[in-house]
Amino acid sequence: MNVKVNGRPRHFRTVTFDAEGNAVRLIEQRLLPHKFVVIATRDYRETAKAIQDMVVRGAGAIGATAAYGLAQGARAFRGKDLGHFAAQVEKIYQTLRTARPTAVDPVNAMNQVRAVMLAGETVEEQQSLALAAAEEFADEDVRHCLGIGRHGARLIRNGVKVLTHCNAGWLAFVDVGSATAPMYAAQDQGKKFHVYCDETRPRLQGATLTAWELAQQRIPHEIIADSAAGHLMQRGQIDLVIVGSDRTLGRTGEVANKIGTYTKAVLAARHGIPFYVAIPLSTIDWNLKSGLDIPIEEREPSEVLGAWGALASREASSRRAFVRLANPSSSAVNPGFDVTPPELISGIITPVGIFRPRELWRNRNRLEWREDSSRGNG
Amino acid sequence: MNVKVNGRPRHFRTVTFDAEGNAVRLIEQRLLPHKFVVIATRDYRETAKAIQDMVVRGAGAIGATAAYGLAQGARAFRGKDLGHFAAQVEKIYQTLRTARPTAVDPVNAMNQVRAVMLAGETVEEQQSLALAAAEEFADEDVRHCLGIGRHGARLIRNGVKVLTHCNAGWLAFVDVGSATAPMYAAQDQGKKFHVYCDETRPRLQGATLTAWELAQQRIPHEIIADSAAGHLMQRGQIDLVIVGSDRTLGRTGEVANKIGTYTKAVLAARHGIPFYVAIPLSTIDWNLKSGLDIPIEEREPSEVLGAWGALASREASSRRAFVRLANPSSSAVNPGFDVTPPELISGIITPVGIFRPRELWRNRNRLEWREDSSRGNG
Repeated sequence: MNVKVNGRPRHFRTVTFDAEGNAVRLIEQRLLPHKFVVIATRDYRETAKAIQDMVVRGAGAIGATAAYGLAQGARAFRGKDLGHFAAQVEKIYQTLRTARPTAVDPVNAMNQVRAVMLAGETVEEQQSLALAAAEEFADEDVRHCLGIGRHGARLIRNGVKVLTHCNAGWLAFVDVGSATAPMYAAQDQGKKFHVYCDETRPRLQGATLTAWELAQQRIPHEIIADSAAGHLMQRGQIDLVIVGSDRTLGRTGEVANKIGTYTKAVLAARHGIPFYVAIPLSTIDWNLKSGLDIPIEEREPSEVLGAWGALASREASSRRAFVRLANPSSSAVNPGFDVTPPELISGIITPVGIFRPRELWRNRNRLEWREDSSRGNG
Repeated sequence: MNVKVNGRPRHFRTVTFDAEGNAVRLIEQRLLPHKFVVIATRDYRETAKAIQDMVVRGAGAIGATAAYGLAQGARAFRGKDLGHFAAQVEKIYQTLRTARPTAVDPVNAMNQVRAVMLAGETVEEQQSLALAAAEEFADEDVRHCLGIGRHGARLIRNGVKVLTHCNAGWLAFVDVGSATAPMYAAQDQGKKFHVYCDETRPRLQGATLTAWELAQQRIPHEIIADSAAGHLMQRGQIDLVIVGSDRTLGRTGEVANKIGTYTKAVLAARHGIPFYVAIPLSTIDWNLKSGLDIPIEEREPSEVLGAWGALASREASSRRAFVRLANPSSSAVNPGFDVTPPELISGIITPVGIFRPRELWRNRNRLEWREDSSRGNG
């Protein structure tokens, strides 16, 4: 999507590949929203470190980064021996895989790249195929998000007020995003609408990343405390909710997403407000039989007890600092995700259409992704 | 309640009067939870400034502070002329009143003090009655809170997990608090229970003040992000919700309280979890006919866009600092309160008993407070 650079909008993807320099170019997401910087990793180990250190986050984005990282490592190989080359590719694969050991996206992406490159009969052919496959992975991620936008845009009527939670935006993918895709498509169609961004404590992805994205795209928006949506719904200020999903159960229609999503769904149902979940096909889990089987990550209490922010202007520049917010002698519980049951969900917006959550299973032929199915937006 | 000072618990009220030094002693609430300091104001103007600058906040607490401030000013008068004395008292009254112009608590408290002191026939008698009346106001605030605790404690069974929102604790009153009163009473009865404190963005009164209070009283507790309660309810981790109220409509049973209260009530109803509101009688508004008539304060966007915290240890000491959390080019909407309808409320815990919200009106003879009726916990 566009980012204003020196006052002018320029198009960026979160991840691209510089074939000439054999470098992966990444938006340094840890500096957002305070600074926009694109970094280049010159070596697959640096790329792995960027994944590990959360320079890049979000399912589609880290998938594409790992795919490019594998191609980058393969292309750096000097020699013609296919055996040595295969051993080196395996080493690169493991390095990139262990950078974010619980994420399935890098694994899926790299498996796809590896399957394609094996068709090459020489090292050089395989190197060339690796990059082509990585580019194809990234392009497909974008096509999926554009598909979500195409189908979801009709939900955004002129003048509506949309609520979203966390960041299921283009920063979590290669471009366009999932929950934001219908917004960007509606904007392209000339529709006017307003977005409320839940700030999304504890990590504030809504106040930082989603708000930054919408500001770059000049979509009118306001941040609200996570507690404020209920009041706004009571006063008729919200017409539609669109969120992303980390994992959607194909068998039941349950949706696991950032903590607080369930609360928004309960409130929306009470007020008769449509509640939609936008997902790429890769986030559908066709195996699990119950939302209770979804492991809910218990994250560090420190995230709730404090926050990262920029020191106000009186301080030297806008230096980032962690501040302790809470009583020092108290601790916190910090579940990272919650599960929303299908009866609270009006529809699941996918690249191939909008489905009622309980209809996913009987449409699985249209919805099944060819790889393992647990990519999320992180 | 108790505060640990040099490792030993000592009893404090938020506000007391030092008759010898003619000083109001106040817990400096702006430094909590990072530092516990009691300050003394030597003069009614200093007392007014402490109210204005939020050294002290919360309905009962600022009411008592204004009552003491009026007595303090009256007692500083030198002379025997009742006319001059009355003029001076009027000046003191206006100074204290305008310190927090929209709050009714200081006005109610000072009216009560003034009514009592007028029975005195000399300046000296009136000075003495003023202090006695201020002490009585403070003591009555404590008795009311103890009454809430006595009636509410039976709701807290051994082993339960209680959720509370914001700070309706002793720091908002002279002692004991409203929503916390049943907890402190249950603790005195030897019951074991666990409290979840909503952090209560944007101003974080739960993470700071309520957590600090409970820690001082050694009540087991954990802070949660405002978004986490729904998930905990789904997993059976919350048995009871108790919150305070800024204004409760005697005619309808609607409750206005800190933003986010309504959301917790909706979630509790969905999960069949009892939802109680603890209030001193002074917060009942017998006039308004609908919750829609309650003015909802729109507060500064900056509260949502940032937060006050303590800089982490690497920085010089634990200096307080304001950090910007959100995207700098985005704004926020920040409603301060919301309104919870009576059908979501299991009961209203008052000093004289627990009532269903729709039963307030026909019990108004028991519930009517003798003064104007809009004190809240701020």
